[in-house]
Amino acid sequence: VWKGAPELKTADGWSFKPRGRMQVDVASIDAPAGVTNTRGGVATEFRRIYLGVDGKIPGGFAYRAEADFANSGVELADVYLTYGPGPFSVTAGQIKPFWSLDELTSDLFNSFTERAAFTQAFNFKRRVGLSGQYKGKAFLLQGGIFGDNANDLLSDTNNSFSLDGRAVWMPRLGDTQLHLAGSAHWRQLNDGPSGVRYAPRPFVHTTDARLVDTGVFAVSSERGLGLEGAVLRGPFHVASEAYWQKASRPGFANPTFFGGYAEVGYVLTRGDSRGYKDGAFDRLSPKRPITEGGPGAIEINARYDHLDLNDAGIVGGRQRTLGVSLVWAPISYVRLTANYGHLMVDDAALGTVTGDRDYSADAFGLRTQFDF
Amino acid sequence: VWKGAPELKTADGWSFKPRGRMQVDVASIDAPAGVTNTRGGVATEFRRIYLGVDGKIPGGFAYRAEADFANSGVELADVYLTYGPGPFSVTAGQIKPFWSLDELTSDLFNSFTERAAFTQAFNFKRRVGLSGQYKGKAFLLQGGIFGDNANDLLSDTNNSFSLDGRAVWMPRLGDTQLHLAGSAHWRQLNDGPSGVRYAPRPFVHTTDARLVDTGVFAVSSERGLGLEGAVLRGPFHVASEAYWQKASRPGFANPTFFGGYAEVGYVLTRGDSRGYKDGAFDRLSPKRPITEGGPGAIEINARYDHLDLNDAGIVGGRQRTLGVSLVWAPISYVRLTANYGHLMVDDAALGTVTGDRDYSADAFGLRTQFDF
Amino acid sequence: VWKGAPELKTADGWSFKPRGRMQVDVASIDAPAGVTNTRGGVATEFRRIYLGVDGKIPGGFAYRAEADFANSGVELADVYLTYGPGPFSVTAGQIKPFWSLDELTSDLFNSFTERAAFTQAFNFKRRVGLSGQYKGKAFLLQGGIFGDNANDLLSDTNNSFSLDGRAVWMPRLGDTQLHLAGSAHWRQLNDGPSGVRYAPRPFVHTTDARLVDTGVFAVSSERGLGLEGAVLRGPFHVASEAYWQKASRPGFANPTFFGGYAEVGYVLTRGDSRGYKDGAFDRLSPKRPITEGGPGAIEINARYDHLDLNDAGIVGGRQRTLGVSLVWAPISYVRLTANYGHLMVDDAALGTVTGDRDYSADAFGLRTQFDF
Repeated sequence: VWKGAPELKTADGWSFKPRGRMQVDVASIDAPAGVTNTRGGVATEFRRIYLGVDGKIPGGFAYRAEADFANSGVELADVYLTYGPGPFSVTAGQIKPFWSLDELTSDLFNSFTERAAFTQAFNFKRRVGLSGQYKGKAFLLQGGIFGDNANDLLSDTNNSFSLDGRAVWMPRLGDTQLHLAGSAHWRQLNDGPSGVRYAPRPFVHTTDARLVDTGVFAVSSERGLGLEGAVLRGPFHVASEAYWQKASRPGFANPTFFGGYAEVGYVLTRGDSRGYKDGAFDRLSPKRPITEGGPGAIEINARYDHLDLNDAGIVGGRQRTLGVSLVWAPISYVRLTANYGHLMVDDAALGTVTGDRDYSADAFGLRTQFDF
Repeated sequence: VWKGAPELKTADGWSFKPRGRMQVDVASIDAPAGVTNTRGGVATEFRRIYLGVDGKIPGGFAYRAEADFANSGVELADVYLTYGPGPFSVTAGQIKPFWSLDELTSDLFNSFTERAAFTQAFNFKRRVGLSGQYKGKAFLLQGGIFGDNANDLLSDTNNSFSLDGRAVWMPRLGDTQLHLAGSAHWRQLNDGPSGVRYAPRPFVHTTDARLVDTGVFAVSSERGLGLEGAVLRGPFHVASEAYWQKASRPGFANPTFFGGYAEVGYVLTRGDSRGYKDGAFDRLSPKRPITEGGPGAIEINARYDHLDLNDAGIVGGRQRTLGVSLVWAPISYVRLTANYGHLMVDDAALGTVTGDRDYSADAFGLRTQFDF
Repeated sequence: VWKGAPELKTADGWSFKPRGRMQVDVASIDAPAGVTNTRGGVATEFRRIYLGVDGKIPGGFAYRAEADFANSGVELADVYLTYGPGPFSVTAGQIKPFWSLDELTSDLFNSFTERAAFTQAFNFKRRVGLSGQYKGKAFLLQGGIFGDNANDLLSDTNNSFSLDGRAVWMPRLGDTQLHLAGSAHWRQLNDGPSGVRYAPRPFVHTTDARLVDTGVFAVSSERGLGLEGAVLRGPFHVASEAYWQKASRPGFANPTFFGGYAEVGYVLTRGDSRGYKDGAFDRLSPKRPITEGGPGAIEINARYDHLDLNDAGIVGGRQRTLGVSLVWAPISYVRLTANYGHLMVDDAALGTVTGDRDYSADAFGLRTQFDF
């Protein structure tokens, strides 16, 4: 079987497939003078270079081991062993702890080059843990106990852990796929309060500048609550999320920060539609790829993204983004994404040369991607 | 051919196989107050995430290249090219320099999650070098000249080198596999005396705390002598080793440190037994895996482990460990290991809050593992 | 199809092949007392350990992702996606920006273990960018716009970029392969002048000592011009290159440094010859490998290498090297290279104990290599 790369299989249930992806970005951010300085302007980077494997083992086991080599180092991505011959499965290893439709949708299939600001702000990262999942026909229940990202676990004084759960109702109603979900998260930080910082990048990833930024503050625990909704019907989809992150500060008022987005998308090429599978968006596969003389698949998306990092005496700023994107998949495993975002920032962490902290900025990104 | 992953072969002698392993550990160490502090308690980590390849090349060549990505970096494991159409072979690259049955047995097949304390204390690590091996029916002779671990060779002032040899007598007497071996090692450190430290972890790997520890001291050369014995018969095995490490200190008395262990194990599942191959233990493969409705293979082991780092004026401490382990291999390539160790420490490097340096500690580890 | 490793293919145009190489070096440099000190002498290292994949995607796409793990880290090598169903192709990703026959020839196929001094001195490294190529029967036109090496792009204040082009005339005249080429390069450094240093290693790679070295100086842009010529006929080849690198220094005179080499080689084994393909040398494949009882392929080479880093007030030194090499390829994918270089240095950056800066040094290197 060929899925971008060969998947080797045996009759008794073994399978093995190499996995990989490359994303090359050219992006720019244009902010008022004094904000991004030399960290702005046009820049290029490897956004992700994943290499890894996954496979199935007879008896109901499956595994994946994948890492990102884009930063001239190794950042472990999904690394797990799953056991689940039936609808219920257990997983040991590093995965995403069940938060947010946008986060759980693979970066290969997101509508924009970068995810919603709140998923970055609230430090959503894969974590090592033990989790379980029940997958029914229209229901998905997920929950687990997690430590921290493998990288952060290298410190042997890191004893933080979290409990994370998510429930998805995803009925297929005629030609309409519905997605309604909620997730809840509780995280206990290290032995004492630890420094936490909420600071997303501005629409593109090539800059390290953060227009909004709470700065580091001491937190003993975090609670998160997420709501997700989406509808797919033919070439059309809408999706929206809301997420509240509450940080417990010993001796201070506990801020609750809010982020969310609303998105609408349309696939222009006849017969094509955005994919959906198991509680997340899936691959946009052209019915008429260029290899058969077709146009590939073309999709346009628009999104309003909201993030408010002002609460309980913390002034991290507020960032609202209007974004549009154009996605072209000439064949299933190659994808070009161009997107533009207009950011409106209040109480910015980075001020202009005149000291103004309420301004707007424009960002543009172009991604070339393939995967196997 | 499928060995956890597909091995591709040609009629004229080429072969190629991906290799990988994942080990996720949850472990804890419980020591008297003041010893491990925040570095103790329950912790989780990826112990090893290996990815690599090996293959055969017509004409008698074989190679392997494998690295560990568990620490969000790259640590090269076996990386070599071998030439040997007959019983004699030569190998260029990084391998283990022929010390200790426990060390030379793959970490996939060890009786406990971590190896004997002396193999950690005396800094057994793979080294880059040139070596030869003669493999007869019941004899194995191994020897080589080695530089240092690839990681340590990055310093271009590292001119240390070692000579290492090992002889194994491994007759098959009826149903009984015998293993008797001795190894000798001599290492010249860098241009002048270099800092050396002997300090094993306490039974589990999740903590960096070292209960016994010589601290760093200046050494000009090291000599090692190892003795190994093992018997396998049906479901039963015993194994024991002794190792003497002598460090030459310019201007001071030369200490000789000693470590060793004695182990006994029994495979509970009918028809199963621990593997043995070419001078080391091999895979525990269930005759009745769970895929065929069987119980998999279950093995229990007990070990007394001894390490004495007190000699010639150096007081590194003495660590004795009583350990028991339970291994379950539901199928050949998946393995769960639970083990418990009771450590008795004298002259510990880490004292209790009351300053006591003679105490006991308890450690527990659970490993989930698969490989291909 | 087997090319050192299996290449998997489908009838409709997919292909997938693992890639890898291992190079283990033992090398030494013998310079007058005081020059290299503990950084000289015999040393061993993994020169390169590449692992990666490449493949073809129906519709005219091809990709490669490969990284070097030799330095216990990750250094990305070729990582790109190409589109080109016809003679014209475009490539996005990290490749070599079209400079120098010696540089563009794979390190698997170079005549010596290390490339010409000027390719090291002038910091030729792969860069991320967008490029195009036209490949005719006897013509090759290459050009692109590049940022920087992926590793250097991690700094988000790195805004340097370069324009690079190369034209190759490579007619096949009877039994003679001719190669004539020129390349031009222009690079704008970061927002302001940036520190640049030209300092090659002395013939071997195991030492970090640089006998000639301009030191770091501020540069706003660089211009490079290269000329290449080569002739291959039967077992015989000659090759020569010249390269001028001009550095623009704000407020100072602009130095132009020069490097080049002339090389001659002869393949001793009957019927064998050095390979040539698409503007670079290619694999030396024995017609009678040892697997068929033959001698493999044996090649001898001699080279004069020249580098002058003295100009416009900068005294980086001058290094001339006479080198000879012996290459043995017992089979196509295994190769041993022994080479010796006699270096003559004037105005050296590293002086002898007596303060002498004009001296000679001798270097020796032995490489064991396999690839797939």
